[in-house]
Amino acid sequence: MVTRSTIMDTNSFRAEHAAALDSDTKILTDKRGEVLGESYRLFYRNPVHLVKGEGQYLWDANGTKYLDVYNNVASIGHCHPRVIDAVTAQMQLLNTHTRYLHENILNYSENILKTMPSEVNRAMYMCTGSEANDLAIRVAREYTGGMGIIVSQESYHGTSELTSGCSPALGTGQALATTTRCVPAPDQYRVEHADMGDWFAAQIQTQIDDMKAKGIKFAGFLADSIFSSDGVMSHPIGFLKKAVDVVHKNGGVFIADEVQPGFARTGDAFWGFERHGVVPDIVTTGKPMGNGIPVSGLFAKHDVLSAFSDQIPYFNTFGGNPVSMAAAQAVLDVIHDENLQQHSYEVGALLKKELTELMKKHECIGDVRGAGLFIGFELADRASKTPNKRLALNVIEELRNQHHILTSVAGPHGNVLKLRPPLAFQMSDIDWLVGALDKTLSNPKMFD
Amino acid sequence: MVTRSTIMDTNSFRAEHAAALDSDTKILTDKRGEVLGESYRLFYRNPVHLVKGEGQYLWDANGTKYLDVYNNVASIGHCHPRVIDAVTAQMQLLNTHTRYLHENILNYSENILKTMPSEVNRAMYMCTGSEANDLAIRVAREYTGGMGIIVSQESYHGTSELTSGCSPALGTGQALATTTRCVPAPDQYRVEHADMGDWFAAQIQTQIDDMKAKGIKFAGFLADSIFSSDGVMSHPIGFLKKAVDVVHKNGGVFIADEVQPGFARTGDAFWGFERHGVVPDIVTTGKPMGNGIPVSGLFAKHDVLSAFSDQIPYFNTFGGNPVSMAAAQAVLDVIHDENLQQHSYEVGALLKKELTELMKKHECIGDVRGAGLFIGFELADRASKTPNKRLALNVIEELRNQHHILTSVAGPHGNVLKLRPPLAFQMSDIDWLVGALDKTLSNPKMFD
Repeated sequence: MVTRSTIMDTNSFRAEHAAALDSDTKILTDKRGEVLGESYRLFYRNPVHLVKGEGQYLWDANGTKYLDVYNNVASIGHCHPRVIDAVTAQMQLLNTHTRYLHENILNYSENILKTMPSEVNRAMYMCTGSEANDLAIRVAREYTGGMGIIVSQESYHGTSELTSGCSPALGTGQALATTTRCVPAPDQYRVEHADMGDWFAAQIQTQIDDMKAKGIKFAGFLADSIFSSDGVMSHPIGFLKKAVDVVHKNGGVFIADEVQPGFARTGDAFWGFERHGVVPDIVTTGKPMGNGIPVSGLFAKHDVLSAFSDQIPYFNTFGGNPVSMAAAQAVLDVIHDENLQQHSYEVGALLKKELTELMKKHECIGDVRGAGLFIGFELADRASKTPNKRLALNVIEELRNQHHILTSVAGPHGNVLKLRPPLAFQMSDIDWLVGALDKTLSNPKMFD
Repeated sequence: MVTRSTIMDTNSFRAEHAAALDSDTKILTDKRGEVLGESYRLFYRNPVHLVKGEGQYLWDANGTKYLDVYNNVASIGHCHPRVIDAVTAQMQLLNTHTRYLHENILNYSENILKTMPSEVNRAMYMCTGSEANDLAIRVAREYTGGMGIIVSQESYHGTSELTSGCSPALGTGQALATTTRCVPAPDQYRVEHADMGDWFAAQIQTQIDDMKAKGIKFAGFLADSIFSSDGVMSHPIGFLKKAVDVVHKNGGVFIADEVQPGFARTGDAFWGFERHGVVPDIVTTGKPMGNGIPVSGLFAKHDVLSAFSDQIPYFNTFGGNPVSMAAAQAVLDVIHDENLQQHSYEVGALLKKELTELMKKHECIGDVRGAGLFIGFELADRASKTPNKRLALNVIEELRNQHHILTSVAGPHGNVLKLRPPLAFQMSDIDWLVGALDKTLSNPKMFD
């Protein structure tokens, strides 16, 4: 989720400067205004009209090639032929719902559950991460008998009524549910405490206590373990463990939202929660699961899920259909066969090293952090740590316009570049990205 | 939505009689129990293991050919080559989100909005009908400032927390929201009133008044205009008009849930609401929109949608992506090029005529109703109208086992066969279906 303020800024700019856009862009942008709801927001002052994708690259209508450093949906690479082949082959045979028997959903479930702790042993499928988190919250509530949900301060968990009410990243327009409580992000760059685990666990306990004081029974803690929207909080490895212990001690469940860190992205592990040595009660997945085919999942401990399933019917028409499952299986196979977890670890480590090197030259870089191909590049005054949102916005525009690199920002101040390319990103792409950042940060205009 | 009781019955039967299933079926059924959540329910005591689909036909793993009289997802026919070709071609080029410009979403929006009243002029896209209805309710609430939602007594509108709370069909396990009110279905077979329009409008007013008395401001009326889960209430044409007038008079919005009657199914019109001569404030779509590719939409009057969009950010990652839009466009093209609305009208009319003929011979048929290829075939005592659920369940099992016809039941009593084949259903299929029903209802064992 890009912070709302960033997107609003570029939209208002675009409205004022529409005449400066090239004619193709202007036609499409105008048409959007005529037929789409106003919720539709574009990236960039000069929006990109994409027509082709392959691996880590995208091409616009003028034939310009871009390096994609943002898309985690096309996680194994844009237009991966194995996903296309699997989807096409299954579409030619059959695509129907789960009231009939089909092997795809069963084979995939066996395979994906093998990647999880043995306690997490039941699968359900939906179409979006929002649907998975919506159901996860309902399951947590049925299992615990509580209503209170804790999330992190800038987190985003979905578009439905229920998940929007648990998504402070949506800003002040979207009211949080009265049963939602927020903990500050585990921001190692700013929080001064000897043990991040202790500090974060104490934040959780404080919110549980606050709920209790207001008569709200605690149901669970819902977190993306890399705290993507909070600005990428990857370290220290294992800091979540004590927080999850506090959750369990207070009778709640831990829902690991793996839409961001899952499917090998962090390099350290296949799932984000594994980096913290915790066993979630519920795991939700989305974006990268089908490389663009809408498929999401909820995986849970049997007894936790049963508390819901015994009471409440749930049927998702498209969820788990043979075509979605074929896409998901192809993604799993490619991650394995192309060794993408190790790849993400190695390429991500070198990228982070080179980005960190840039700090020597550029005082405007406050921090570089991340795991695998999920890197937070924070622009902030070195001494005061004051976030530089304006610089971050200038940089992403300059990267798009001058260097043909697509990325965006995250964090409460909109000053953290979220560098999250498809896992097809190669060692040979590092120079493009790091060189462009070096040049951009050397350009005094960026600081205007 | 099949009523929950029906599915539960067949599940408990299956558990008891597992030994009688053939080995392939038993292996798959057992594996489902091991890896899937218990929400997953199968059709039939002897579940069907499907492996292939084409047009209106399906084949199981033994090569047995079935006539599909139930699937409205594969609405233009299973595995339609034009959808497969469109999806494959677009997958090979690009699949990304709507923060970049792409023509597919714009071209489709222009085309689909042309099928709607001119007042409905803005489009948004999601992945499931549940997501569309979830958003529609939120839009209705922002626009009106109210919270109260009226639905029909046995309706089903989705799987999210918000839509489940507006779906009485889910049964007593799922609590309705305190802001939900139910009107009885406009059941022409049972309601005795000279004017169904007046009667139904009065029901709406009663519920609005009840809300008001409890301090709940009315937001809107959410209805599938063919009242599918209520047991298929298609007539008299136009009866909804007065109800929608009452909705507007009381400051609410009318949300037309077109997941069931939309996309030419009723034969009378492209959209279900058109049959009633009403202009909805919001239209939601789902199942048949992409012929199996998960795509759904929300179409609304500009000012109604703006009330939401001005306040609350909404971004659906997969919604409106170029592949989903290619699938949706192919469906729209096929409906037009294959003249499926007229086809549904003609084939549906003959099918309804022949089914009505069966009433002369079979006293157990209480009523035959419907529009186009959406027919309710109600099994009830002719004199007392007492629903015969047991007969209906026996009939759907017999159709599956002896006649290889797949269908299911609807309505609060589970006694209405919902005959809703893909629109690829042909004149030549009528004999198969009507002949099978004739034989089945002639079999005394069905009445045991």
